[in-house]
Amino acid sequence: MAREITIPAAGKPFKNNATFCVGSGRLGLALQKEYIDHLKIVQERIHFKYIRGHGLFCDDVGIYRETEEDGKHVAYYNFTYLDRIIDSFLEHDIRPFLELGFMPEKLKSGEQTIFYWKGNTTPPVSYEKWAELVETTLAHLIDRYGAEEVITWPVEVWNEPNIAFWAGTMEEYFKLYEYSAKRERVDPNKVGGPVICGIETEKWLRAFFEHCIENNLPLDFVSRHCYTVGKPVRKGQFIYHEIFSPTYMIEELKETRKIMADYPQIANLPLHITEFNSSYVPVCPVHDTTFQAAYIARILSEAGEYADSYSYWTFSDVFEEYDVPRSAFHGGFGLVALNSIKKPVFHTFEFFANAGKELLYRDENLIVTRDDKRYVIIGWNYHDTRKGEPGPDKEYVLSIPSIGQQAILIKKQVGGNYANPLQTWSNLGKPRTLNKEQRKILMAASEPLQTDVKLFDEKGFYKVKLTIQCNHLYMLEILPVKDFTDTYDGFEPDEFFGLE
Amino acid sequence: MAREITIPAAGKPFKNNATFCVGSGRLGLALQKEYIDHLKIVQERIHFKYIRGHGLFCDDVGIYRETEEDGKHVAYYNFTYLDRIIDSFLEHDIRPFLELGFMPEKLKSGEQTIFYWKGNTTPPVSYEKWAELVETTLAHLIDRYGAEEVITWPVEVWNEPNIAFWAGTMEEYFKLYEYSAKRERVDPNKVGGPVICGIETEKWLRAFFEHCIENNLPLDFVSRHCYTVGKPVRKGQFIYHEIFSPTYMIEELKETRKIMADYPQIANLPLHITEFNSSYVPVCPVHDTTFQAAYIARILSEAGEYADSYSYWTFSDVFEEYDVPRSAFHGGFGLVALNSIKKPVFHTFEFFANAGKELLYRDENLIVTRDDKRYVIIGWNYHDTRKGEPGPDKEYVLSIPSIGQQAILIKKQVGGNYANPLQTWSNLGKPRTLNKEQRKILMAASEPLQTDVKLFDEKGFYKVKLTIQCNHLYMLEILPVKDFTDTYDGFEPDEFFGLE
Amino acid sequence: MAREITIPAAGKPFKNNATFCVGSGRLGLALQKEYIDHLKIVQERIHFKYIRGHGLFCDDVGIYRETEEDGKHVAYYNFTYLDRIIDSFLEHDIRPFLELGFMPEKLKSGEQTIFYWKGNTTPPVSYEKWAELVETTLAHLIDRYGAEEVITWPVEVWNEPNIAFWAGTMEEYFKLYEYSAKRERVDPNKVGGPVICGIETEKWLRAFFEHCIENNLPLDFVSRHCYTVGKPVRKGQFIYHEIFSPTYMIEELKETRKIMADYPQIANLPLHITEFNSSYVPVCPVHDTTFQAAYIARILSEAGEYADSYSYWTFSDVFEEYDVPRSAFHGGFGLVALNSIKKPVFHTFEFFANAGKELLYRDENLIVTRDDKRYVIIGWNYHDTRKGEPGPDKEYVLSIPSIGQQAILIKKQVGGNYANPLQTWSNLGKPRTLNKEQRKILMAASEPLQTDVKLFDEKGFYKVKLTIQCNHLYMLEILPVKDFTDTYDGFEPDEFFGLE
Amino acid sequence: MAREITIPAAGKPFKNNATFCVGSGRLGLALQKEYIDHLKIVQERIHFKYIRGHGLFCDDVGIYRETEEDGKHVAYYNFTYLDRIIDSFLEHDIRPFLELGFMPEKLKSGEQTIFYWKGNTTPPVSYEKWAELVETTLAHLIDRYGAEEVITWPVEVWNEPNIAFWAGTMEEYFKLYEYSAKRERVDPNKVGGPVICGIETEKWLRAFFEHCIENNLPLDFVSRHCYTVGKPVRKGQFIYHEIFSPTYMIEELKETRKIMADYPQIANLPLHITEFNSSYVPVCPVHDTTFQAAYIARILSEAGEYADSYSYWTFSDVFEEYDVPRSAFHGGFGLVALNSIKKPVFHTFEFFANAGKELLYRDENLIVTRDDKRYVIIGWNYHDTRKGEPGPDKEYVLSIPSIGQQAILIKKQVGGNYANPLQTWSNLGKPRTLNKEQRKILMAASEPLQTDVKLFDEKGFYKVKLTIQCNHLYMLEILPVKDFTDTYDGFEPDEFFGLE
Repeated sequence: MAREITIPAAGKPFKNNATFCVGSGRLGLALQKEYIDHLKIVQERIHFKYIRGHGLFCDDVGIYRETEEDGKHVAYYNFTYLDRIIDSFLEHDIRPFLELGFMPEKLKSGEQTIFYWKGNTTPPVSYEKWAELVETTLAHLIDRYGAEEVITWPVEVWNEPNIAFWAGTMEEYFKLYEYSAKRERVDPNKVGGPVICGIETEKWLRAFFEHCIENNLPLDFVSRHCYTVGKPVRKGQFIYHEIFSPTYMIEELKETRKIMADYPQIANLPLHITEFNSSYVPVCPVHDTTFQAAYIARILSEAGEYADSYSYWTFSDVFEEYDVPRSAFHGGFGLVALNSIKKPVFHTFEFFANAGKELLYRDENLIVTRDDKRYVIIGWNYHDTRKGEPGPDKEYVLSIPSIGQQAILIKKQVGGNYANPLQTWSNLGKPRTLNKEQRKILMAASEPLQTDVKLFDEKGFYKVKLTIQCNHLYMLEILPVKDFTDTYDGFEPDEFFGLE
Repeated sequence: MAREITIPAAGKPFKNNATFCVGSGRLGLALQKEYIDHLKIVQERIHFKYIRGHGLFCDDVGIYRETEEDGKHVAYYNFTYLDRIIDSFLEHDIRPFLELGFMPEKLKSGEQTIFYWKGNTTPPVSYEKWAELVETTLAHLIDRYGAEEVITWPVEVWNEPNIAFWAGTMEEYFKLYEYSAKRERVDPNKVGGPVICGIETEKWLRAFFEHCIENNLPLDFVSRHCYTVGKPVRKGQFIYHEIFSPTYMIEELKETRKIMADYPQIANLPLHITEFNSSYVPVCPVHDTTFQAAYIARILSEAGEYADSYSYWTFSDVFEEYDVPRSAFHGGFGLVALNSIKKPVFHTFEFFANAGKELLYRDENLIVTRDDKRYVIIGWNYHDTRKGEPGPDKEYVLSIPSIGQQAILIKKQVGGNYANPLQTWSNLGKPRTLNKEQRKILMAASEPLQTDVKLFDEKGFYKVKLTIQCNHLYMLEILPVKDFTDTYDGFEPDEFFGLE
Repeated sequence: MAREITIPAAGKPFKNNATFCVGSGRLGLALQKEYIDHLKIVQERIHFKYIRGHGLFCDDVGIYRETEEDGKHVAYYNFTYLDRIIDSFLEHDIRPFLELGFMPEKLKSGEQTIFYWKGNTTPPVSYEKWAELVETTLAHLIDRYGAEEVITWPVEVWNEPNIAFWAGTMEEYFKLYEYSAKRERVDPNKVGGPVICGIETEKWLRAFFEHCIENNLPLDFVSRHCYTVGKPVRKGQFIYHEIFSPTYMIEELKETRKIMADYPQIANLPLHITEFNSSYVPVCPVHDTTFQAAYIARILSEAGEYADSYSYWTFSDVFEEYDVPRSAFHGGFGLVALNSIKKPVFHTFEFFANAGKELLYRDENLIVTRDDKRYVIIGWNYHDTRKGEPGPDKEYVLSIPSIGQQAILIKKQVGGNYANPLQTWSNLGKPRTLNKEQRKILMAASEPLQTDVKLFDEKGFYKVKLTIQCNHLYMLEILPVKDFTDTYDGFEPDEFFGLE
Repeated sequence: MAREITIPAAGKPFKNNATFCVGSGRLGLALQKEYIDHLKIVQERIHFKYIRGHGLFCDDVGIYRETEEDGKHVAYYNFTYLDRIIDSFLEHDIRPFLELGFMPEKLKSGEQTIFYWKGNTTPPVSYEKWAELVETTLAHLIDRYGAEEVITWPVEVWNEPNIAFWAGTMEEYFKLYEYSAKRERVDPNKVGGPVICGIETEKWLRAFFEHCIENNLPLDFVSRHCYTVGKPVRKGQFIYHEIFSPTYMIEELKETRKIMADYPQIANLPLHITEFNSSYVPVCPVHDTTFQAAYIARILSEAGEYADSYSYWTFSDVFEEYDVPRSAFHGGFGLVALNSIKKPVFHTFEFFANAGKELLYRDENLIVTRDDKRYVIIGWNYHDTRKGEPGPDKEYVLSIPSIGQQAILIKKQVGGNYANPLQTWSNLGKPRTLNKEQRKILMAASEPLQTDVKLFDEKGFYKVKLTIQCNHLYMLEILPVKDFTDTYDGFEPDEFFGLE
């Protein structure tokens, strides 16, 4: 049965932080042409404000070196690659959300590394040298890009110190935070932590907050990560999981806010989810599916009520944590697959980037938003079909307050045969790398189906029916129309072969 | 009832001359940026070999001038614009099919003109000066572009001398032909005529052939025009007609070939239809419809059996014969509407440009073609809905000889909600000129719907079902596929959420 | 003998209006690709704010038409081309300085025309219809581009009504002004006149001012034109003149200001020179020379003291007043020659577009300007060599207040072998139209010679020697430099083969 | 004293192999955007046929991996990056000159590595697995790009096995060669070696030749490297050397040919110098100087007499052998410096790429070449100024057989203030990384000075004077000109202000 809903004419501000920040493969990959190609697409169609990736201080970015002077090892800072990377970010109107890590070869205190690309996770052999590295880097950025620009770039200390990303203890992380945050306070960047993933959350948050308060450390925002899947199950080159309800993430946000609320100094700080996704591995097929597009839409519809940002991990499949990708589609994190193919979830962000500033209606499958003379409706219907049959359609009959005698409804559809390049790639035989013809086919196959119809005011409302099939995503845009038909002298509808 | 057809494995060469030549607004318009923008699109997606437009010698191209020397008027030839025009043709890999006309101001013998842009249609005041103009122009082109290039450009003498394009008599046309064809024989371009439209066809063709034979005049090809509509009925700014069956044009071609066959010297000459379309006026809505896409497909499917080219009139709505166009859609001739919007019939040519070289099957609604490892099927279903209800669907079940165990079928659809920008423009209120947002909506609305499915060999055949709705056009491409699925260790279809 | 000059550290604002506006061929030419190509170059390198051309209401732009309704002729307004033209202006970040004229075919009261392209110069057959045309056009522009944008576009009534551009009397011009200015007052565009050229200046200005004052007509700015040559002498396809001193134009500006000063309501109005150049014909070689580059520099150095703009006539050789140009170089008005070749005077505007906001020094051959941390010096040395031998070099030794221990001086030179494509074209044999190789040679030949040297603070000053040869133009830019040489461990100057 | 030389009208073929191949940083760097930017510039202006770099099998290209199947390690080949790299080569119309090396992590037999990027130099732990890697890679390339294409790509086995690039013995290299060359013989690529640098040349060449002959191994070409400097002397971050005469390289080529001549099976094989340069370290300033431009010109003028190619090491400063480059200019190998700045020696290759096919004259400072209707003269004057004062100018007066009554001489100059961005960078303070303004200044500063003059036939000859200053390089192009001056009615030279 269709739900009949009368949309109110006014609502409340839509807290939509979908485009505040996006994740990236390690910064060294930002030198790659393919990375920049994807960034260009993402910025043209979605336009994120910030970008965050690991590896700022890893050796492939090349910043920290030592030279011998008079028999002593002296720090040498090389910003050739960092400048190139930041230049290309700014060219695409995106700014770095700086993550301080991991440990340069010359400052490491041990051999523990993470990932194929071997990010060293050990505490610095000298916290003073680390602090100097942070300070020198920020000072260089200000020198090159100007303080007015650089102070708008948030700074996070390390990544997920509560798991294998940090070979030290919690106390050692706090020490690292202290050295990092204090020094860089010289310039007024916003600094935050503890960047944890959802393991021992409460313990870490409380300890971190209390440490900062007691030691009067700078803390401008709180950050953490959210992934919404169960234990990884490896099968060959893939990893599969149970996938939790998207409300799982909403609950995590609420819980975090609740813990923060216990500390008056912290209660009202911004909360940045500096990574989120369903699966946290780059070889899980869910990322490439239309299910993901609908699933993430549910999160984007509500997360802004609790968090100031939630940074999708990641914008591109140019990514090497689990080695060089082995095929065009492989379950990578990206909004964009290799060869610049947009995945279904790309459009989730594109649609939310286009949402109106006012929220008129929201349920578990639909939001209705508006700007002055324009409605944007986004609908989704995720269903974990791995557990059995497809879920039922969601049907709506909406009565929307008219914004003019006549309007156009433009509908964009993701799901099934549309904007589903994973299926087309399967139909092409799942080729490892694509040739030109395959790329062209997939490029066309990755765009939503766009159709449009006329709407007419009926007693102050437009009537819009919407059926959302299982694992589909829709955006409906309504724009007022001035009809010029009467100005066409001699216009006879019949002679236009069925034109409406 | 669906027609069940078994396609043979081999056929005969598909005589497909759809991309040999295309028509253009007068050559002076080729200086416009919008014209070049459209040409770029057409060449990227269709790639015609030749382009033909009126007005080579009209005053806006600026070739023929006179200056005073010692009190005498002397010819002065200015090739500034001609060179710019031809340069931009060659840049887009298209060559001129030269039409000699109309009369420059300084050579006219009377005041008769045609069109808003006032092409002078009178015989030359001096045939010698005309011949010198022709000869000088061709010599200049050879000087600039090289003989090897220029001799591949066919030359036609004047346009439709049997109606208002020529203010002289038939005999005067023959005289013009003689002066033009003889002189320019100096260089070995192919020359032809009589470029008539379908009025008094037989009389003109026979008289022209006999005149050429008797006077031993050069004649390298025969050319004429075909339009397939009845009398124009003006209603306000539009003109409507009865539209004949597309076979009307096929019959005209057969008749022309029959007349040619009576003259041994002429029987085997190339026959170029240097203009064709349904309606011959640039304010007839049929040009903008999906009906036109299907209707023209029927002509392209067979015309190559009789004619060596058939040049669609025209590639672009940058056109001024009936004054500056008054709105984005206005019934213009173009494959491309103003603002670079592709019309439905654009895809007819795009699809035929992609047809295979071998013809396996043809009926009134379908052709099946192939190249070595690739099938291309084009289907259409035109129906003049102005006479009443929509026509019935055409349904097919095709058995196509397998070219591999597995294949992909890529289907492109034009009609209804797809590739139908005229309807979207109507939904937008029929705006006279488009703003950026409207352009973007229409740009997306003008592409065919592309979907794809897997095909599997069943006893040596692929089974393909196709339903062609009224006034729709389809292209189906079948490509063999090597399936790599087995190389994906751990691949579990369920985990891909319904991936097939 | 070199002039030794000590430049002061501070000066006064440099009244530099060089980039306020530039002239254009008739607006119908703005549809041409070549026109847009040139506009792009000009905007990238100079960036004018406004553009002004004739022919807004001429028939090729297609705005004013009439249709028959119930046997009556009714105005029909077609904005297809106007919208396209304004769109492309705004795309290149330039705005129209609207000139109302000339007379549409359907509103003309006589047959007088001007130019090859036959602009009709007669008063309207109905002043009411004219006023409606003006009003409807402005209302359309506001509807499409928004009032906030459109009201920044100045509006001038007609062009040079004191000579052959206006077939009416002075009184009829005042009537036209009244109808135009009153009606369009509906929206608050700035309106002005009388757009005269330098014939009977005082008579026209006084009569116009008095008429406006007496009749309380809107008058937001005063406009006139300045050309600085004597009687035209035709020789074949060229026209030559005596060329006056550039101070001739400065005197005209002063005189105009003096006349304005007699009317309190007018004394402080902006004065726009909506056309200026040396010669007023598009077949005078002076426009293409390095002499012109130096000559115009002298005008730009001082004209801002008296006029709020001075619009160089014109930015491009895409121009048809004297027929289609007959050759690559032909004495056209453009800053850019056909085929996108920059003329020497292009660089005059480029250099002044880069001038500093503060004027430190000015004489007849040199200005020294600065911004915060940057000097720009422009020097010129024009000399009419037609009267005999080249003029002497101008030699300077400048002492410029230091802006840092070390600086770089970047010198750009126009003249002689540099940025002198007219000479290279002559060396190529003066080809009528250019082939690709010739274009490439000329493209390189049209850029100034750029060289650079180090400057060092000597007792608070940089010493800069400058020799300006006859008919040369220089721009010297001084930027402070931080010298990193000491950070290069192991740097031995000798090993860099003479590096300084 | 100027040398007076009469150039003959005909000569012999100019054996000019300057553009056959060019060197590259390790192939993994070909994923970088900056690398591709430089490749684009190099191909547009020089257009090399092949490109050769190390590291095909290094782990960052990601080809060789192992997976566990049933407890066994099984080879897994990943061509994601290789395909991307080759795709971008072919997009820029350049083909790989394949160098087989270095050793993948999983096949290494020891820990020895070379360079900052740690190429493993040890023999394979299994020669069979190595051979399978070679074979699988070539088979994949053929599968993707077609045999017709791939068999034109030469294959070299390893790099400089006679020094630290190979941790094995000579015999082990021969074994590697045998395994590599035999297996890949399956497809008919050309294979060669021994890729030695100039240490123990004769010993290695004779042993290698004899080994191949005795064992009947495939050997399609001989390859070696040539560098022309003495022992490296490190000073801080730079390395300096004695630089030998360019004839040193010519002598090496002669010696190699002499050794080859002793073996009939080898005497006539192609000889490819797959690396050459002056200094063999990427931190030697000579690479960035105008001296280098002149010095390399001398080699290019003659090396083709002895070698079938000589591949400049390298096209770009995107290079990491000695760590990430520390500054814009740093003595890297590239023709193009970071930020797409062309170095002086870039133009050496550009000039030789434009040389005529016929050699009319050659001495130690000059070649005169021609094509049908075009002369190209290249002159150079290198001098090692580190040893004292600049060398004397080289002065020529050439009498060149006329190719028409009139001609244009286009002169391009490198040296001193022209095309010398190293000096401009020094004037800018030697910034480590460049900002936009600095890039723009350097971009302009890196182009040769182009000037042109008329030449006239004097008794069958053109007289051309040329003075080549110390460490300058010139290209003079002479093209016949048709003079149209007489067609300009009214042309008066005086009125063009000194036009010649």
